[in-house]
Amino acid sequence: MRCYFDHVACNPLHPDVLDAMMPYFKEEFGNPLSIYDLGIHAREAIEQARQSVAALINAKPSSVVFTSSGAEANNFALRGIAAAKQGQGKHIVVSKVEHHSILNAARFLEKNGFVVTWMPADKAGFVDPEVVKKSITKETILISVTHASSEIGSIEPIREISRVAKEHKVLLHADGVATTGNIPVDVKDLGVDLYSMAAHQFYGPKGAGALYVREGLRIVPLIYGGIQEGGRRAGTENVPAIAGMGKAAELARLEMPTRAEHCRRLRDRITEGILKIPNVYLTGDREKRLPHHASFVVEFIEGEAMLLMLSMKGVYAASGSACSSKALKSSPVLLSLGIPSALAQGSIVFSIGRDSTDEQVDHLLTEFSQIVARLREMSPFAKGWGEEGEGQKCYVGG
Amino acid sequence: MRCYFDHVACNPLHPDVLDAMMPYFKEEFGNPLSIYDLGIHAREAIEQARQSVAALINAKPSSVVFTSSGAEANNFALRGIAAAKQGQGKHIVVSKVEHHSILNAARFLEKNGFVVTWMPADKAGFVDPEVVKKSITKETILISVTHASSEIGSIEPIREISRVAKEHKVLLHADGVATTGNIPVDVKDLGVDLYSMAAHQFYGPKGAGALYVREGLRIVPLIYGGIQEGGRRAGTENVPAIAGMGKAAELARLEMPTRAEHCRRLRDRITEGILKIPNVYLTGDREKRLPHHASFVVEFIEGEAMLLMLSMKGVYAASGSACSSKALKSSPVLLSLGIPSALAQGSIVFSIGRDSTDEQVDHLLTEFSQIVARLREMSPFAKGWGEEGEGQKCYVGG
Repeated sequence: MRCYFDHVACNPLHPDVLDAMMPYFKEEFGNPLSIYDLGIHAREAIEQARQSVAALINAKPSSVVFTSSGAEANNFALRGIAAAKQGQGKHIVVSKVEHHSILNAARFLEKNGFVVTWMPADKAGFVDPEVVKKSITKETILISVTHASSEIGSIEPIREISRVAKEHKVLLHADGVATTGNIPVDVKDLGVDLYSMAAHQFYGPKGAGALYVREGLRIVPLIYGGIQEGGRRAGTENVPAIAGMGKAAELARLEMPTRAEHCRRLRDRITEGILKIPNVYLTGDREKRLPHHASFVVEFIEGEAMLLMLSMKGVYAASGSACSSKALKSSPVLLSLGIPSALAQGSIVFSIGRDSTDEQVDHLLTEFSQIVARLREMSPFAKGWGEEGEGQKCYVGG
Repeated sequence: MRCYFDHVACNPLHPDVLDAMMPYFKEEFGNPLSIYDLGIHAREAIEQARQSVAALINAKPSSVVFTSSGAEANNFALRGIAAAKQGQGKHIVVSKVEHHSILNAARFLEKNGFVVTWMPADKAGFVDPEVVKKSITKETILISVTHASSEIGSIEPIREISRVAKEHKVLLHADGVATTGNIPVDVKDLGVDLYSMAAHQFYGPKGAGALYVREGLRIVPLIYGGIQEGGRRAGTENVPAIAGMGKAAELARLEMPTRAEHCRRLRDRITEGILKIPNVYLTGDREKRLPHHASFVVEFIEGEAMLLMLSMKGVYAASGSACSSKALKSSPVLLSLGIPSALAQGSIVFSIGRDSTDEQVDHLLTEFSQIVARLREMSPFAKGWGEEGEGQKCYVGG
């Protein structure tokens, strides 16, 4: 049985999404800037997709700028606002539980004359609006906080952070890659100025992302060139992928309650089952988390070993974030929560999808507890853990 | 009859390319960084594509960095080298016949502390290596010259420019978006340090481009994040598009002589036929030009009017570059060649593809001469041109 529990790494395409893309790989191959019918059809596909994506997050269509990925959207937000607002100040505030595309884009800015304040989160991964408030200086031009980390699943108090940002007249960007299409997102209610999205996180294609840029907000392009995307992002548009993102957004909006309910139920089964294994700890918050996301650290075992053994049993999962799973370092996000490095190495994330079944969860739970037992038998660090109850002292939130 | 003569705006996908992409939209949907089989298969697809693209330009596979478009590759080259080399100098040299993605990325650098020297080309659109030489200062870190402009088709003397660059130890980037897959490209023989490509220019998909970065050359990422593309370009890889680009590269390498021969013959027919119309001039060089590219300026008529009337007759063409065709300004590339603004407005580009036929060329020639005649009847500027032979004085190369 194949049990794909790595939906945060990538979702399979929804079949309707592929159907929506196909014409643009075939007869409708025009360049959207061409003035004849082929160009017009391509342009219409993009504008229809823009409406669907905008509707998913309650934005105006003109506020949605398509990009090639969530990572591009995150880089665009940080570097684009930094370039646009550098005259007003060169300080930005970023949380420590961000995705690599935020962390590393912020480090780039740090090397290029900006000052970055790195805000810690609490044990459960939450960024405290009070900490945000204290981080703001007169030079601050931007705050960037993830809506939810794909590593720990906790949903950040963006609305509360937005109040702080507005009070201090500082722009707020939220990385919505893990949330968009999975939980209700209303950019106006959240009060964000910029919001990143990635289509493959909600059954859309790879190669399509978007940045919401609040109306009237100036941003400097990351990719200069032609007049595509209102001059904000150049390059011949990836029409099939954008059309696919639009269809995926439309489906996500319609099916979200059903999908979330289904995922939440399976997630809770996984969480309950896995926490029965001794010295395994939930990371992130138990309640305020992504409905399809269950993440843990397992004492005395390395994530990679678990992943490999699970995959031999047909169970697919992640350790840390997919973008660094080959880097074999402890996740900076987990370390920032105070989780000791050795324990952070034992990170594992199960993420559930619309096709996941109870049988797959049964299989996962059976196999996982056996794998943990086997790996611990082989681990020199696991000796005697039972007697001392070492794990109970572990510094894990949730 | 539909006569698609706008292959520089976008090529239709080669059917074999779509076949090569399909598995990655369906069963092989994994994230290339995942360590289980789905991830491995996706990774293998990317590495195979990298080999095919590298083989097309005689590069090492590790020198090929995939991007989402040619525009991204161009921005990456300019901004990435500027950021990496700014300690050595802040001067770059760019020709005036570049694509908007180069022109506007250079303008961004100009606004951010760099000095840019804008080199003119001669009437036929050629950048003189002597002009390059004179433009270099002690502060120069990069020269960027297109291998061929998609507006005028002339193939630049990159090899000779490279000699000048090497002599002065300055890096050379060539924009190969219009050339790659259409004429033989050997980055070692050309002597370039960086070279941009776009898959849809050779029957690959939209959403896939690449930058060749010579081995050992440090470049700062445009998109930061995970460890994709050797840490040089982050974001979940667009696996289907990359696989498609690889297949397109493979096909281009095999079929290039046949395709080029076919296109050249039709192009020469178009050129001969169109130059029979009075007061129409070839832009770019007649011989040293892209085999599939014929470009003209037509006196007394606006490009857009021609495009619209042609499209009503099933003939698809371009005016200026696709990336600005809706901007309704005279092309800066044409203006830089000394073509008067009014005449530059009458630009038209026909670009031929592997499926183009003699019948389509016949249709194009018949319709085009009629359309020119009709538009000139309506044009207040066209009065009396026949008597005075005004056009003969026009400043056009070729």
